[in-house]
Amino acid sequence: MTTDTWEKFSGRMRELRHLESIAGLLGWDEQTVMPPKAAPGRAAATGTLASIEHERLTSPEYGDLIEGLLQQDLGTERRAMVELAQRARDKAVKLPPELVREMAELASSSQSAWVQARTADDFSIFEPLLQRTLDLKARQAEHLGYKNEPYDAHLDLFERGATAEQLQPMFDAVTAGITPTLDAVLGRDDGTRILPGGPYDASAIMAYCSDLLARMGYDMQAGRLDLSAHPFTSGVGPQDARVTTRVRSDDPKEAILATLHEMGHGLYHLGQREDWVETTIGASVSLGVDESQSRLWENHVGRSLAFWEGEFPKAAAALKPLAAATPQSVFRAVNRVRRSLIRVEADEVTYPLHVAVRFEIERGISNGQLKAADLPAAWNESYERILGIRPPSDADGVLQDVHWSIGYLGYFPTYLIGSVYSAALFDAYTVQAGGPDLVRDQFRAGEFAPLLAWLRSNIHQVGSLKLPAQIIADATGRASDGSIDTGPFVSYIQSKYRDLYDL
Amino acid sequence: MTTDTWEKFSGRMRELRHLESIAGLLGWDEQTVMPPKAAPGRAAATGTLASIEHERLTSPEYGDLIEGLLQQDLGTERRAMVELAQRARDKAVKLPPELVREMAELASSSQSAWVQARTADDFSIFEPLLQRTLDLKARQAEHLGYKNEPYDAHLDLFERGATAEQLQPMFDAVTAGITPTLDAVLGRDDGTRILPGGPYDASAIMAYCSDLLARMGYDMQAGRLDLSAHPFTSGVGPQDARVTTRVRSDDPKEAILATLHEMGHGLYHLGQREDWVETTIGASVSLGVDESQSRLWENHVGRSLAFWEGEFPKAAAALKPLAAATPQSVFRAVNRVRRSLIRVEADEVTYPLHVAVRFEIERGISNGQLKAADLPAAWNESYERILGIRPPSDADGVLQDVHWSIGYLGYFPTYLIGSVYSAALFDAYTVQAGGPDLVRDQFRAGEFAPLLAWLRSNIHQVGSLKLPAQIIADATGRASDGSIDTGPFVSYIQSKYRDLYDL
Repeated sequence: MTTDTWEKFSGRMRELRHLESIAGLLGWDEQTVMPPKAAPGRAAATGTLASIEHERLTSPEYGDLIEGLLQQDLGTERRAMVELAQRARDKAVKLPPELVREMAELASSSQSAWVQARTADDFSIFEPLLQRTLDLKARQAEHLGYKNEPYDAHLDLFERGATAEQLQPMFDAVTAGITPTLDAVLGRDDGTRILPGGPYDASAIMAYCSDLLARMGYDMQAGRLDLSAHPFTSGVGPQDARVTTRVRSDDPKEAILATLHEMGHGLYHLGQREDWVETTIGASVSLGVDESQSRLWENHVGRSLAFWEGEFPKAAAALKPLAAATPQSVFRAVNRVRRSLIRVEADEVTYPLHVAVRFEIERGISNGQLKAADLPAAWNESYERILGIRPPSDADGVLQDVHWSIGYLGYFPTYLIGSVYSAALFDAYTVQAGGPDLVRDQFRAGEFAPLLAWLRSNIHQVGSLKLPAQIIADATGRASDGSIDTGPFVSYIQSKYRDLYDL
Repeated sequence: MTTDTWEKFSGRMRELRHLESIAGLLGWDEQTVMPPKAAPGRAAATGTLASIEHERLTSPEYGDLIEGLLQQDLGTERRAMVELAQRARDKAVKLPPELVREMAELASSSQSAWVQARTADDFSIFEPLLQRTLDLKARQAEHLGYKNEPYDAHLDLFERGATAEQLQPMFDAVTAGITPTLDAVLGRDDGTRILPGGPYDASAIMAYCSDLLARMGYDMQAGRLDLSAHPFTSGVGPQDARVTTRVRSDDPKEAILATLHEMGHGLYHLGQREDWVETTIGASVSLGVDESQSRLWENHVGRSLAFWEGEFPKAAAALKPLAAATPQSVFRAVNRVRRSLIRVEADEVTYPLHVAVRFEIERGISNGQLKAADLPAAWNESYERILGIRPPSDADGVLQDVHWSIGYLGYFPTYLIGSVYSAALFDAYTVQAGGPDLVRDQFRAGEFAPLLAWLRSNIHQVGSLKLPAQIIADATGRASDGSIDTGPFVSYIQSKYRDLYDL
């Protein structure tokens, strides 16, 4: 390999990372500070950027560079860089440019139809555009190819190598493992309010969350906290990871947990190896692993008693009405289990069931059993069967999530993968840190640097050098056969809620 | 011409406008909300975007499209679109890609050296990078070509068709016209504080400025107001023009005048014809005309007594300490004339002299008479001769402006062009509105819609369909010989300050 060839390839990788970074900024801006009337112009500019990225990914010169390099002796890191470049290029090459453009344009118009439909609680507004989206997604799957069934093509876009056949046992095992806990817990909760109802000052909540981020080890010189309708994290570029949260005047829990959740994503982004950030491997390896980071900080830290024992005095000082609570009552409030309609507001125990509904429906859509028109009924039936609750309206049912409107079919399962991985990672960290008592001591003392350091070296700094399952296997010290071990997650749920509800 | 050819050309124009819009967002973000550590990554991404734009501008296919279309009968609008595309392409083609990249990279590193040098008041930190910049600019001028002297190449980048030979008489006439006024005024001012010294609440100033924008007719659904170190406006895209200001706790004047100034730029951007926004002609025609819009709102509105007679009660209610002032005292304060060191803080009378210093020095640099090392002495000599004041330090002298560090040589003269044009435009509006008394009645009543409507149809909606001087000539009802008539500006200064200082 000539130095020149590698330089050329590096330049192309760098350029693609820059385009990704720019797209990230466009997205962040759109969801936080962009003036509303700018939306159509922004959609058009975003489309242009996507076309340019597609054009560069698919250029024959880039293909030749990749093919040439794969013949060479590159060493592990460089080989991984080239292979990931090849993976992204292969997917792009398989898609006709017209389909890429059509999907991008539809994602923009369909999203506003979804907002309208949800606001009006009228699925019929969204249905025709959703059907068009599903048709395009079906074409996309055929172009991309798949292992066993079309759904696998969609899954692989978000979780490298995932298949429905591999995920079905994960859903089954988790559902079977948590259902007894759920049934037992639901009989113990009388539903009365636990935390003071406020009103909480919105700017005080934001200031507290910002302070919390900094104390947890988030570098606020390389990030920001903003408000948005739906909390999200945008890795805008190297040393630039922006998190958002939302606030309610009657309940500060949601803002705090969302902040910790998004912080997990942001820490992962900021923790990438500096010498890799302009390469394909200096990035989140999959959405499942990314979600393992957010779930770990949200649930294993933010929903722990030890965290609240340490944090409560600061939270109560910043958020006045909370002073009437106690660390124990906050702990109970953030872990309260309910059959609820809305996924993003669900507790740890029912959350997997919300995801299971979507997995089942997405598989049915992808494999041709469900059309857009069938979805409201299928959704309600599925919620009743799996969660024991029937949505009274489509707005609180099939219309609640943005994902399908923007063409994200196959994304939902990564939420459960993340939860499952997070429990395995937290177990491994606990062992390495000397056991649960010592970890609790750390949390009570507000010492999160050891946890962050462990995640940095075991997850963040590995980037995308290995496959997701291998990274988790290495971090947890288990052999990887590519399957997802649900044991740690199920044990975590069973034991935590047994203690909490005194089962 | 086949429809297909025009469609292709439109697509390329649209794409270039989108890239421009994206670059605008990167710049806005960098100067307002970007986390500080993100700077190096952002510089790299910005460089990539600039390279992509250059590559697309210079592509042979684009050139063939333009050449082909210019042979056709296109009609006025389409011909103007193609000619402007050709102008941009010609400039790009003349520059070697290495020079474009080198200038972009140097602009990034040189800017931080400038900040350091200014903070440390040590020109030597900046000098080597400035000399490199000037060397690159000299090469750029040779590549671009020029009418009479290298400086013309630089001027034309900012003000289409401007030459030093044409601008010299403007500077001479303005300097000669205002110097007697300046000399007379300076004897009349005793220098005591006019407005209450505060402290003014920063968030109250921002809220007031935001409210002011909305009341002046700025569509806040298509724009924002933010804080930044140096006030600026970013036309991020169609229906997205963001203005910034800065606040001082001891003086609300600066924030208000900067808001009105930037609002003028933003209104020009938002006022472009909707069917042109994705073409080359749906944009600001030149920096001089752009500056005529900002100066008009800042000076002819914001520095008028009638405006303050109407606005004062609202300002005093929002900015508590100001209640001790009067409309007349605010009017005197915003029009106070002083020999000062800093251009951006200068009054209307001395402002042209600050610009004249830079014009003289830039001409000397461009034509090879001045090197970077000569600039501090040349600057101080020029300030003493032209403004009668000698900077005690380089930080308040040659290091005060960001322009040269980012490669903007030839930009400064557009500030005076803008002031001169704004006076001519305001005269024309006054005649059309029925005379000065009626205009004052409008301002006192807070009625700015008629002025905005006149600017919309005479300036904004003309876009870049004509040359800058022609647009001003048409708007003011005068024949255009391409020269810049300084008469209205000089008369405005002479008569306003005669009345104000009772000369």
